[in-house]
Amino acid sequence: MTDFILDSRLESDTIELGALDLCRVRLMNDSRYPWLILVPQRVDVSEIVDLDESDALQLMREMQIATRVMLDVAKPDKVNVAALGNVVPQLHVHVIGRFLSDPAWPGPVWAQGEAKPYPSHGAQALIDRFTQAFLAA
Amino acid sequence: MTDFILDSRLESDTIELGALDLCRVRLMNDSRYPWLILVPQRVDVSEIVDLDESDALQLMREMQIATRVMLDVAKPDKVNVAALGNVVPQLHVHVIGRFLSDPAWPGPVWAQGEAKPYPSHGAQALIDRFTQAFLAA
Repeated sequence: MTDFILDSRLESDTIELGALDLCRVRLMNDSRYPWLILVPQRVDVSEIVDLDESDALQLMREMQIATRVMLDVAKPDKVNVAALGNVVPQLHVHVIGRFLSDPAWPGPVWAQGEAKPYPSHGAQALIDRFTQAFLAA
Repeated sequence: MTDFILDSRLESDTIELGALDLCRVRLMNDSRYPWLILVPQRVDVSEIVDLDESDALQLMREMQIATRVMLDVAKPDKVNVAALGNVVPQLHVHVIGRFLSDPAWPGPVWAQGEAKPYPSHGAQALIDRFTQAFLAA
């Protein structure tokens, strides 16, 4: 059996927060939006139908957990939840806190301008808050 | 108890295909992309965390059904599945067949150009194919 390996593009664009039962949880390194990524730790999965039913239902539970954490930590006006995969085929779910005041509102965040990485050590406070919120979820 | 009422913007932008156990299933009236919309028939639901766990798990089952139908009927290169709700707050899930040759690839489809409604009677063949595929799913 092949082991799960995180896609290299996801690895370089995001920061590890931890793992739930199914998914690796990562923070997009883009300070424009509070943006979590859930990656099911399964091999050769691109579409949600590539997950068996048990894993798919667990993914929904973890999408709900991540949405609750996003609402608690970032207090956005809306949460966007999406599995696109046009660029990175490895199944991953975006959970993005959106604000009426953010640069892409009300449009989608993808393919809009350039990511603004967090400054050195600038992500740590947010990482700690998200990590604590997941532990409490 | 208040009855479910489909949001008026969803009503005008989409064509009814039918219903699954939880969701109304509609076809976006935009011939640029094969594009299904799932609308959970629940009142006052905007975020996926507004669904109780049983409904949320059923939504995932229906997202898998709609994705399978999309793959069968349209044979796209990728399926995009997303709950955004920045414009229409009533919870709805997009299930969009994407092609390397489509006008927005690899970007997202939202907020890209103008919808191209199907010509009169031009949607009927597609409606029939989707409806048959959901009945067989």
